[in-house]
Amino acid sequence: MLELSRASWTDVAAHLESHPAIAVLPVGALEQHGPHLPLSTDTLQADTVARRLAERLDAVLLPALPFGNTWSNDALPGTVSISADTVTAFAADVAASLERAGYALLVIVNGDFGNRLPLQRAAEQSAARDGMPVLVLDYPGLVEIGDEVKDSPWAAPGLCHADEIETSMILAVAPELVHSDRMQPAYPELPADFGLRQMALAPLSPSGVFGDPRPATAEKGERIIDHVVVQSELVVRRVLAALHPAS
Amino acid sequence: MLELSRASWTDVAAHLESHPAIAVLPVGALEQHGPHLPLSTDTLQADTVARRLAERLDAVLLPALPFGNTWSNDALPGTVSISADTVTAFAADVAASLERAGYALLVIVNGDFGNRLPLQRAAEQSAARDGMPVLVLDYPGLVEIGDEVKDSPWAAPGLCHADEIETSMILAVAPELVHSDRMQPAYPELPADFGLRQMALAPLSPSGVFGDPRPATAEKGERIIDHVVVQSELVVRRVLAALHPAS
Amino acid sequence: MLELSRASWTDVAAHLESHPAIAVLPVGALEQHGPHLPLSTDTLQADTVARRLAERLDAVLLPALPFGNTWSNDALPGTVSISADTVTAFAADVAASLERAGYALLVIVNGDFGNRLPLQRAAEQSAARDGMPVLVLDYPGLVEIGDEVKDSPWAAPGLCHADEIETSMILAVAPELVHSDRMQPAYPELPADFGLRQMALAPLSPSGVFGDPRPATAEKGERIIDHVVVQSELVVRRVLAALHPAS
Amino acid sequence: MLELSRASWTDVAAHLESHPAIAVLPVGALEQHGPHLPLSTDTLQADTVARRLAERLDAVLLPALPFGNTWSNDALPGTVSISADTVTAFAADVAASLERAGYALLVIVNGDFGNRLPLQRAAEQSAARDGMPVLVLDYPGLVEIGDEVKDSPWAAPGLCHADEIETSMILAVAPELVHSDRMQPAYPELPADFGLRQMALAPLSPSGVFGDPRPATAEKGERIIDHVVVQSELVVRRVLAALHPAS
Amino acid sequence: MLELSRASWTDVAAHLESHPAIAVLPVGALEQHGPHLPLSTDTLQADTVARRLAERLDAVLLPALPFGNTWSNDALPGTVSISADTVTAFAADVAASLERAGYALLVIVNGDFGNRLPLQRAAEQSAARDGMPVLVLDYPGLVEIGDEVKDSPWAAPGLCHADEIETSMILAVAPELVHSDRMQPAYPELPADFGLRQMALAPLSPSGVFGDPRPATAEKGERIIDHVVVQSELVVRRVLAALHPAS
Amino acid sequence: MLELSRASWTDVAAHLESHPAIAVLPVGALEQHGPHLPLSTDTLQADTVARRLAERLDAVLLPALPFGNTWSNDALPGTVSISADTVTAFAADVAASLERAGYALLVIVNGDFGNRLPLQRAAEQSAARDGMPVLVLDYPGLVEIGDEVKDSPWAAPGLCHADEIETSMILAVAPELVHSDRMQPAYPELPADFGLRQMALAPLSPSGVFGDPRPATAEKGERIIDHVVVQSELVVRRVLAALHPAS
Repeated sequence: MLELSRASWTDVAAHLESHPAIAVLPVGALEQHGPHLPLSTDTLQADTVARRLAERLDAVLLPALPFGNTWSNDALPGTVSISADTVTAFAADVAASLERAGYALLVIVNGDFGNRLPLQRAAEQSAARDGMPVLVLDYPGLVEIGDEVKDSPWAAPGLCHADEIETSMILAVAPELVHSDRMQPAYPELPADFGLRQMALAPLSPSGVFGDPRPATAEKGERIIDHVVVQSELVVRRVLAALHPAS
Repeated sequence: MLELSRASWTDVAAHLESHPAIAVLPVGALEQHGPHLPLSTDTLQADTVARRLAERLDAVLLPALPFGNTWSNDALPGTVSISADTVTAFAADVAASLERAGYALLVIVNGDFGNRLPLQRAAEQSAARDGMPVLVLDYPGLVEIGDEVKDSPWAAPGLCHADEIETSMILAVAPELVHSDRMQPAYPELPADFGLRQMALAPLSPSGVFGDPRPATAEKGERIIDHVVVQSELVVRRVLAALHPAS
Repeated sequence: MLELSRASWTDVAAHLESHPAIAVLPVGALEQHGPHLPLSTDTLQADTVARRLAERLDAVLLPALPFGNTWSNDALPGTVSISADTVTAFAADVAASLERAGYALLVIVNGDFGNRLPLQRAAEQSAARDGMPVLVLDYPGLVEIGDEVKDSPWAAPGLCHADEIETSMILAVAPELVHSDRMQPAYPELPADFGLRQMALAPLSPSGVFGDPRPATAEKGERIIDHVVVQSELVVRRVLAALHPAS
Repeated sequence: MLELSRASWTDVAAHLESHPAIAVLPVGALEQHGPHLPLSTDTLQADTVARRLAERLDAVLLPALPFGNTWSNDALPGTVSISADTVTAFAADVAASLERAGYALLVIVNGDFGNRLPLQRAAEQSAARDGMPVLVLDYPGLVEIGDEVKDSPWAAPGLCHADEIETSMILAVAPELVHSDRMQPAYPELPADFGLRQMALAPLSPSGVFGDPRPATAEKGERIIDHVVVQSELVVRRVLAALHPAS
Repeated sequence: MLELSRASWTDVAAHLESHPAIAVLPVGALEQHGPHLPLSTDTLQADTVARRLAERLDAVLLPALPFGNTWSNDALPGTVSISADTVTAFAADVAASLERAGYALLVIVNGDFGNRLPLQRAAEQSAARDGMPVLVLDYPGLVEIGDEVKDSPWAAPGLCHADEIETSMILAVAPELVHSDRMQPAYPELPADFGLRQMALAPLSPSGVFGDPRPATAEKGERIIDHVVVQSELVVRRVLAALHPAS
Repeated sequence: MLELSRASWTDVAAHLESHPAIAVLPVGALEQHGPHLPLSTDTLQADTVARRLAERLDAVLLPALPFGNTWSNDALPGTVSISADTVTAFAADVAASLERAGYALLVIVNGDFGNRLPLQRAAEQSAARDGMPVLVLDYPGLVEIGDEVKDSPWAAPGLCHADEIETSMILAVAPELVHSDRMQPAYPELPADFGLRQMALAPLSPSGVFGDPRPATAEKGERIIDHVVVQSELVVRRVLAALHPAS
């Protein structure tokens, strides 16, 4: 694995001589995550998953985009959102730059719900013009491992925001940023159409929490991250197999 | 100073009750900086200056954008460029988000030449619609302090790329990323119109260096950073004085 | 239910006096569906589902958009594709026009895979600006009912294109357009990353078929359509409940 | 003639082997047409003219776009307008898709005044980049035949909206959608600059009618349609003659 | 009449106190007009008509845009074309600026065929958002007076390019720019679809002339200009009457 | 030098056979310049400098764009502003048109502060796609010669608007447009951040003047223009030397 932000251009040239030209890009957010988690929660998580995935793939790791399309949490202080179109343009630019440089695949590790559509759009734009393959990963296996490790109920199926899962992940990777003394559960009553269409989240939970962070542990976080990384690698391997079918 | 990426939303709410609503945004690049400096050189420098500036201003520090408009160095491996329009859209989005949240000023600390026009464009867009003031800083005082501390000649007036100045700054803030054994000077013959219009840099210097990194020291880097931060603060104070004239 | 294409403006005015201001918009495609199904297969299906859904909701039915974002089938004659951005712009325009006219909800019944992202993007744009709710339905319950009625295997999980399901649906709604004598199964070997990212479909199946259309019957088609309509109504009712919570 | 919405891709392939690759696209609107005509009046008319024209040309008939740029009638219920830019993008996309598929000519039969500029813009875009010829027809010969068959005066020179002409045409092609009992004439006083610049129509005529629908008959409608189709064919033949000059 | 390019802002303020806030904008082109006429022919003509019209209206005269959408003449040296979208954006910006300043009407005098659609689009954009009225004039009455004064036949109905009409107009307003010794007639064989769709002109006439410039005289030019100005004023007066109906 | 607006296309063809294919484009503005100077001040100055520069370079002179991005003076009557994006699009279109025609260099002589960023953006767009070189000149040497000839102080370092410098230049090139009797000095108190970011100018000076026009003379104007032209030529010569290095 080569971390681009720490490498010189000659390091990159040397690395690419003997390793596959695969790049991994984490995309995060700067978004409220309750009173006990940092605003960079999504970025920290995406960066960790991307880093470990890049290691397993001998790939090149790009620095994380620390902002995302987070208008749904705009109402709470500290959330700084960029538009869906800007997320798409950013990812499309990075893909085009890597394509010009001869890369074979860009894997995007997305850490925020609001980035899903914009990143998929960038991937589709590349596909529609027959460009470099762009694969967007949204934490494959997360719900599966969440069901396994969680001791608290979900606030809604598949919804984790500042809850046991996210808190565990940050306890695993940046425990100094977790305020254990501020952890409080919140199970907001969700509107009947929650999950059917995008909506502002902040009005639903005054604390910004959806779930119960209290049972979170670093060990659970490690298990979650590990599972997501393993599942992510499986997905990427399928793409690589398709790009370079065994002869 | 409050570093947003480490703060929770409640920290932000508390901070803003007793501090000015000023945000500082570093904008960097992922760009070749010779064989001895990391690709994130511009990001590291901008982040450092922004951090110290935010401290002096009791301001809020945003995470750095680690990519920039660096097509002029596209030819060397590791440079990953985003377009000028994406840099503008990113900065305009951040400004609009902060404006909605009630901020009084966004200060952008720019670390890469290619971002100048795109960031100024975002600032002008805000001014033209009578929006929140956006101030773009391009290392005020850098040439002045460079003249003072440098032991090697400039590759061209005001041009510093992987030279004594940039190497000193990285020695001051991330010495573990500097390969002292790879330092080699380069004083490329520049075309007659260098500096008059933008042009690809990579063809001009095979190593990517413009100057002589060898006399660089961490102490010089500290002096440079300190001077730029002091000058930056003076500029911001002038803007703040205009926003809140003494009665 | 009021079908706008057959109504006069005075009919609309009278209808809205005593019925909810809900509009249902089918979005189809003009895309190859094997040698035995018409190019308008997706449009016919979406129009049928939308029509029956509008009946159950006492809603207003808009005419179908008979084109979609179908670049992935561009290689076979007869496919006429419009871009993802145009699909988004179209849906956003219709939503904005209905919003100005005082409608409470736009339900989009999507009949083509390639329209999913573009339509969701239009829905999110409306949500992000706090506009009229836009709900995009992608045949809820289709896989469920497919598993129940199908006698042939799926070409891939959830993939139905010119197969038993689609053929059954057209047999139910436009049997005169189905060429039973041309039905041939096709189970193309799919690349390892099929379903992980968007890709051109035409190169994978020379006939354009993915599955086995031969066991299709009109009765199966009726069961499929009926199930999807019932499931669609359930989803819309949840949204309506959220818009007008019982007091 | 081959109607794409009813054909399979193999039908298209076979057709194009022995017929010219000419496509005819009707573009309509969903717009108020008085209390007695359906909102789809423009779409029905354009579809009819396009269909008969395609028959005479042995061409391929595309399905109609059932929406148009009709902001000028937004004030009356039932009008659902899309923007001028979306109409242009739609037509440009269809043209580009057909061009990639090897077509020699796209003929657009336009049924709504508000689509004229947007469709001409798409045609010019194709011409400016030396792309496939795109011909936009706005009912050539309509005024001529109108003068001949009408028993009622025009509301303004060349203006026909829900009047004798339009009512006759719908009586000819979809009599079941005409409410004869609701027919009332309206000769609104028009502003001095009517016809000199685009303006909202709805405020000018409370009923949405401009003219007198009462003398309308299906036979007149047939004569009108027939004349417009003949004139349309003459125009297309001139373009075809230019594309394939006799040797 | 007040010519803005010669007035100070205080002149404008004084003028608007006692005159109607009407602005006249000439839009020209830089386009080949045969060997005997200057590239600025369209600009000179539009400027002249606009100036005389402004005098009759006591209006404000804006400076002319000396470039137009002239890709159809790109093949001959000296033609410098701007895109259709730029022409639209320019006109829309001017209209918006005047609207903010309180003007009641913008009259655009267009001197080039290629600007028609782009300028009409700007006018429609203003109408669609209920903005300031924008009226685009394309030399009303030109064909009429041409038929009256011309001694040479038209190259095609209504087509005048570097012919007797245009040459007469330039003889009237800038005789020093006309090379009488280079005048040669050209009646190119036009393709059967000439006038039905936009096409490149340069390939049709090697000299760039369409018609016979030789019978041109300054006196004819004066008659043409005078007639067009009178007709233009009549059109504007109709718009003004509609804006300010007599009480 | 060949002035395109006065030349025919055959003149251009002949000129380019024996002269370098260099084009000079003046870009001005229609903007308030105090009670004593015309709104076209910037256009007149840019046109004069461009004309003399073109003479020295044996280049082709384009007609001036007589509008600019002048929102900062919108508040005073007579200022008619176009947007920054339109200025960029205009310059990019002209550059692309000249590039298609085989030109080697476009030199833009800019006469208005608000056009700087937009024109530089057009130049950078061309550089980023490796297109024709575009050089933007902002009156090189102006401050230098201003310091030399001025008898009045600057309103701010480098700021000249309707002051001694601008008035001298117009006295030199269009004395009939200068109202000597209306000249009044104005040294507005500028906000502390003046020059650090773009801001509206009109609120700062009720008369629109920044400086003292009274000591202006035509002779000073000539010296200023001459110096700027000489400096401009030096800059262009450096670019030409780089494009065609001596062998």
